[in-house]
Amino acid sequence: MATFKLYGDRLSGNCYKVQLLCALLHVNYAWVPVNILAGDTRVASFLEKNPNGKIPLLELDDGRTLSESNAIINYLAHGSALLPTEPFALAKVQQWQFFEQYSHEPYIAVARFIAKYFGLPAERRAEYDAKQKGGHKALAVMEQQLQRSRYMAGDTLTTADVSLFAYTHVADEGGFSLEHYPAIGAWIDRIKALPDFIAMGA
Amino acid sequence: MATFKLYGDRLSGNCYKVQLLCALLHVNYAWVPVNILAGDTRVASFLEKNPNGKIPLLELDDGRTLSESNAIINYLAHGSALLPTEPFALAKVQQWQFFEQYSHEPYIAVARFIAKYFGLPAERRAEYDAKQKGGHKALAVMEQQLQRSRYMAGDTLTTADVSLFAYTHVADEGGFSLEHYPAIGAWIDRIKALPDFIAMGA
Repeated sequence: MATFKLYGDRLSGNCYKVQLLCALLHVNYAWVPVNILAGDTRVASFLEKNPNGKIPLLELDDGRTLSESNAIINYLAHGSALLPTEPFALAKVQQWQFFEQYSHEPYIAVARFIAKYFGLPAERRAEYDAKQKGGHKALAVMEQQLQRSRYMAGDTLTTADVSLFAYTHVADEGGFSLEHYPAIGAWIDRIKALPDFIAMGA
Repeated sequence: MATFKLYGDRLSGNCYKVQLLCALLHVNYAWVPVNILAGDTRVASFLEKNPNGKIPLLELDDGRTLSESNAIINYLAHGSALLPTEPFALAKVQQWQFFEQYSHEPYIAVARFIAKYFGLPAERRAEYDAKQKGGHKALAVMEQQLQRSRYMAGDTLTTADVSLFAYTHVADEGGFSLEHYPAIGAWIDRIKALPDFIAMGA
């Protein structure tokens, strides 16, 4: 794997996915701090690298860039035990990653962002409240899967777990108590106990 | 490729992605109609197959199921010219598919749904209006890419194009005029001219 730069913000769960994956796989990279709240992703020099103005962003030595956290971790995990090669098993990993981006992150991560970084201001209270139903639906779908298999896409750890762990393990910061999701709780403990695990914000 | 069932609704762009991919690759399947508006995805027999209650859903002959449109089309395109095997090229396909689900579909498809299927009722007008900015941002990002390459992930057609074509080519039904996006317009024409292309709703 070529060396690369990773543009990210340590507050972001999407960036943490890449940091955690790299820790688990012993992949080295150069971290380039980007402050979302200060508007660093909206300046021309960053938009040139990622026109969608989002982090994390991976930049290879030859200047090629890759955005979208789940695309980045699948790229970095290519050839490792964290990404199956059998087509259906690989498809299940992607299924859970698309679930994460469409049915999980827009509720749980956004509610957490409003509460943790903006202090749950009155004008965003309705938006925060509206996120609770969808977030609990996503957690219920995860709970059902984790009652059947040790990890999201089967009995071994994959990038799908890295994708879903990022915001699930801090869901309480968005108002989602995990006490009624025992299988999710056991899965979180299992991931935290992995060799080379690193905590968010590290 | 094993034969399979595809649960879907012909009104859904997410289902159309799978129908179009199968047409382009001459893949046969059994279509099982599901009516979203009538609540078919909320009944126990469907939730048993997909606990997230969404279509499209692929069911293999052995009963295994796969959800999430983009995961399904990548699975079906495995080994074909529509899915690169070189790791970085494959990652770029996934980048655009995650972009589609997070930064494109929630604006363009949802605005279209409100207008086309609910007739833009007064109580959803604010929500519809709020989708316009994000939708145009997504279209601007696509336009920039398509001014640089013939297809979204490079110079050849991939599943990323199938993913983004589904709702982009009917974006006008959600209030998004494409007249200021000439490269998107040329790309739409290029896809419509593909051998074996099928139209949405067919």
